[in-house]
Amino acid sequence: MQQIEHRACFGGWQDVYQHASPTLNCTMRFGVYLPPQAERAPCPVLYWLSGLTCTEQNFITKAGAQRYAAEHGLIIVAPDTSPRGEGVADDPADDLGQGAGFYLNATESPWSSHYRMYDYIVDELPALIESNLPVTQARGISGHSMGGHGALTIALRNPGRYHSVSAFAPIVNPSEVPWGQKALRAYLGDRPEDWRQHDSVALIATAAERLPLLIDQGEADPFLNAQLQPDRLRQACEQHHHPLQLRLQPGYDHSYYFVASFIGEHIAHHAAALG
Amino acid sequence: MQQIEHRACFGGWQDVYQHASPTLNCTMRFGVYLPPQAERAPCPVLYWLSGLTCTEQNFITKAGAQRYAAEHGLIIVAPDTSPRGEGVADDPADDLGQGAGFYLNATESPWSSHYRMYDYIVDELPALIESNLPVTQARGISGHSMGGHGALTIALRNPGRYHSVSAFAPIVNPSEVPWGQKALRAYLGDRPEDWRQHDSVALIATAAERLPLLIDQGEADPFLNAQLQPDRLRQACEQHHHPLQLRLQPGYDHSYYFVASFIGEHIAHHAAALG
Repeated sequence: MQQIEHRACFGGWQDVYQHASPTLNCTMRFGVYLPPQAERAPCPVLYWLSGLTCTEQNFITKAGAQRYAAEHGLIIVAPDTSPRGEGVADDPADDLGQGAGFYLNATESPWSSHYRMYDYIVDELPALIESNLPVTQARGISGHSMGGHGALTIALRNPGRYHSVSAFAPIVNPSEVPWGQKALRAYLGDRPEDWRQHDSVALIATAAERLPLLIDQGEADPFLNAQLQPDRLRQACEQHHHPLQLRLQPGYDHSYYFVASFIGEHIAHHAAALG
Repeated sequence: MQQIEHRACFGGWQDVYQHASPTLNCTMRFGVYLPPQAERAPCPVLYWLSGLTCTEQNFITKAGAQRYAAEHGLIIVAPDTSPRGEGVADDPADDLGQGAGFYLNATESPWSSHYRMYDYIVDELPALIESNLPVTQARGISGHSMGGHGALTIALRNPGRYHSVSAFAPIVNPSEVPWGQKALRAYLGDRPEDWRQHDSVALIATAAERLPLLIDQGEADPFLNAQLQPDRLRQACEQHHHPLQLRLQPGYDHSYYFVASFIGEHIAHHAAALG
């Protein structure tokens, strides 16, 4: 992996790396924040998954997370949201193709040759981080919107792999909402039973561990009713006795101003679990 | 003035307004952060002046200042850096024309019909803010790079108008460095005696009040030696007994990661002076 940005930030370093990904069959970038504590000892890692249209830049430039990561001694790894490049299939819409990988492994043409973000996030990226950076084995995962969907589904499908999980305005029930149905049909084909393997509401029913979920959702989010519907996850968690802290935040929308306002509390939540 | 963005942020509101500016003869935008305290009582205002290429968006999306403004009950007003629009003179370079107003009143063609950022920042914008928003008469001013130059020169030329001033990586001696000489020659003509009215190092000699200057400068800033040279301001302040706190920050560059790392201390500095 090649370092392409290296900037002092809150006593640590906000870096960006580039590497050739065999999983995604293209060049990928990710941001890494190294807090000052990482100069002396390994630190736990929080993986941050971004939302539709984002690259590795959005979170690292807009969320203001570095201050809190420096306070708690947490490394934050923020990957891109899809494979990228001229040879990678794309779509003119914002909610499919490049910038919209949905954190799954596509089985359908033309997506299946590159769109394997699930394997990238679960296996390739942590292996790369753990062999190159001063990290412990303690992992947390969080994300925003499509990335909140990624964080929740990946944590629910991999019991024991993450010590903590949280999300901002996640797509909790993609099988049943327009953004999710469009992407799941394109990437996985027209088999709803496959879609439910990437649907938090469906996965709660069979979750093998009771990892507590922390979710913030803005009540003025323009996507709340059509795409997000956190109440469906609340109902599933109640039914299956899965611990959930769902915080509805009056006045907040879907932007990074919302993420920035509560990222400090999420980082404190992860830091407490990651030790 | 027309509100074009309104987003909840740290318990307050990050807004953007648009208005027709008679001073600049074009439509202008500025960001306003209203902390939660502003719902109950007027708050003091910090004016933030951005650097080359910036619009009103850079500071409000990248600096993470809202958290600290909410803690201290400070309103932050962040204007654009030049007149804008199709009818406004421009230059293909980043350091002249739109995005590079240099906070002065141009006297030369083709700039003089729009480029009056000095009058806009000193008179028009505060009058607009003070007649439309819940503000006290306590004003601070700060900025980054070209905006640090603007903050320092405007505070030095207007004794009594600002209670506090600070800057990040300011252009302190534009009469003597390439960025400044190019802009000052274009906007003001080939008369160096006029340039010195917009040069902090020159203005220190005749400053009518001893307003303390707080300046942070990254030691890894790629523009440090050719364009910024804060040591020239240090020498002028020593010679003329002007209070200056110049903090050289090892490892930090010229980016918003640098600004974000120290904006909290600057906001605390302004809040203490603004009461």
